Amino acid sequence: MPDLPTHGGQVRAVMQHFPNALAPYIDLSTGISPFAYPFTVPEADIFTRLPERDEEWALRQAAAQAYGVSSPDMVVSGAGSQSLIALLPFILPAQRVCLLGPTYSGHAQAWQGNNVPLTQVQNPDALHAAAAHSGTVCVVCNPNNPDGRLLSAAWLADLADVCASHGSYLVVDEAFADFCEDSVAYLLPHPALIILRSFGKTYGLPGVRLGFVLADGDFAARFRAALGSWPVGSIGLAVGQQALQDTVWCQQVRQQVFHAHTRLLRVLDAAGLSCVGQAPLFTLVNTVYAADLWRHLCQHGIVTRIFSDQPGRLRIGLPGNDVAWARLENALAHWQSRTPDIESGDRD
Amino acid sequence: MPDLPTHGGQVRAVMQHFPNALAPYIDLSTGISPFAYPFTVPEADIFTRLPERDEEWALRQAAAQAYGVSSPDMVVSGAGSQSLIALLPFILPAQRVCLLGPTYSGHAQAWQGNNVPLTQVQNPDALHAAAAHSGTVCVVCNPNNPDGRLLSAAWLADLADVCASHGSYLVVDEAFADFCEDSVAYLLPHPALIILRSFGKTYGLPGVRLGFVLADGDFAARFRAALGSWPVGSIGLAVGQQALQDTVWCQQVRQQVFHAHTRLLRVLDAAGLSCVGQAPLFTLVNTVYAADLWRHLCQHGIVTRIFSDQPGRLRIGLPGNDVAWARLENALAHWQSRTPDIESGDRD
Repeated sequence: MPDLPTHGGQVRAVMQHFPNALAPYIDLSTGISPFAYPFTVPEADIFTRLPERDEEWALRQAAAQAYGVSSPDMVVSGAGSQSLIALLPFILPAQRVCLLGPTYSGHAQAWQGNNVPLTQVQNPDALHAAAAHSGTVCVVCNPNNPDGRLLSAAWLADLADVCASHGSYLVVDEAFADFCEDSVAYLLPHPALIILRSFGKTYGLPGVRLGFVLADGDFAARFRAALGSWPVGSIGLAVGQQALQDTVWCQQVRQQVFHAHTRLLRVLDAAGLSCVGQAPLFTLVNTVYAADLWRHLCQHGIVTRIFSDQPGRLRIGLPGNDVAWARLENALAHWQSRTPDIESGDRD
Repeated sequence: MPDLPTHGGQVRAVMQHFPNALAPYIDLSTGISPFAYPFTVPEADIFTRLPERDEEWALRQAAAQAYGVSSPDMVVSGAGSQSLIALLPFILPAQRVCLLGPTYSGHAQAWQGNNVPLTQVQNPDALHAAAAHSGTVCVVCNPNNPDGRLLSAAWLADLADVCASHGSYLVVDEAFADFCEDSVAYLLPHPALIILRSFGKTYGLPGVRLGFVLADGDFAARFRAALGSWPVGSIGLAVGQQALQDTVWCQQVRQQVFHAHTRLLRVLDAAGLSCVGQAPLFTLVNTVYAADLWRHLCQHGIVTRIFSDQPGRLRIGLPGNDVAWARLENALAHWQSRTPDIESGDRD
């Protein structure tokens, strides 16, 4: 078995271990929407000049409107939400970090890389208790990745208030919130609340590298200063502003995503795989044969996400077209037909 | 007079104060080459997937080769060298910073924004003395911006050694070094030396946002960890790798740049403007009427760079085509014809 990847994507790195797999590969290893925003690739000319400050302001304006905060002053734009996560430990004063997990590994990596003591709790109540220790940064992904656990806005609002009254902070990573209705952005400005939003997942354009921090104006200004001038390049400015304002497309794709998500649940169920978590852009299945199933799908040219720290779990993203659906269904049918082998433990 | 911009570029922001100026505006406010690398704009498809790790490695490989370091392990790629400058104070332990100035303002801003005590010295010997105080980060732009002052590689090598033996560091910003022969990259790996390189200036593509840190492997690895996964988006990966490997184009553009630079010196000289500093991509003139000349050129739709902290100085970039040359020469002829007004102090 090859080294397990630490992120979704990295399809080429994974598939070099499966040289006989059917190409083109289908990447279901991420929670990225397969329905990419149909932007017009800008002319080469736009890259020959420095981005202008009013372009970045317009992008932040569009983000403020799309995410429901009242001013672009409360928005930080950056080259992907992962880069903003990586920068958080440098900007947010923290005695310790408490993470509601298991969750996206980028958060733990960022804080541990900066030697901030980190605990991971599985019970939301434990996070609540941790917030009462002054100087704690509480981190929640909502909906959570990979299990889709969703905390209510009311509960998070209460947690943010506890943080504020104890000199702690609450970071809510809403990378997968665009297709849900549970964003806590409406609480801003709030002295203890910092929200992360991801552009690439919802708009199916992760290669653009665009993400946002939403926070009170002072914190956002400090964050922007840390990023320096020109935090977003010409492609992010052009595509981001256009896509974030396109509410009609957003409504349509929401329907597509929900339709595909329902279909995925059906397909997995038909294959005898039990879904133990979900968000609109991914489904988490639980099987003692997760590693075998991952390898089986790779051999069929389909990459899913397996977790070295969560054995038995497999996260599966949304197929984006008929070919992808057919190949997934075919690979799963193949898998089922081999179940006797599995039961006897005789797996390749 | 409008607020002076703190960077080059920002042409729209500047020109809104000159509503009657001739359009299209000519941006000579930066040290960005007007000869853009003729890349093929990639298909929209490449943005629909996450950059792969081997693509970033290939980019770092190309950068290592282009900049003359022996391994991509010593290269950090990021979204523009300004973003890397902004991140330096978070990664480099510093008791204090000593800057050889006046120079690019981004350095002072980054350190001051992080409350690191900063002194600016004008004499290279003073920098040498500062390096002997343990924990000092010495910052040199070489060639310097805006005056083009060039320190020899031998002198910098000595300074780097002084830093190493006193627990200090030397940051050499080689943003404008591509058309010179004085890079100190050959000294790497060196325990005290950190080099910055800018892609956008040399390749005329600042909107791509691409820049590099060159440093010893351990420091580079720490820097990459701080940037997180996917530090460069699809456009930077595609264009950067292609351009950095194109040594033929690089040779050709070097000739073009030197030709344009010589022509600019001649044009300025003919206009009675005395050049007090230069690098291949820009020329610095000194005149007591700098602010008037800046405004005069703006009124002719030509934006140059004026410095609020360096009165009397104007930095002028390279015109990129016949129209731009003609308009610059015309505007300067106009300026000269008004010299009697200047002498009498009767300026609008």
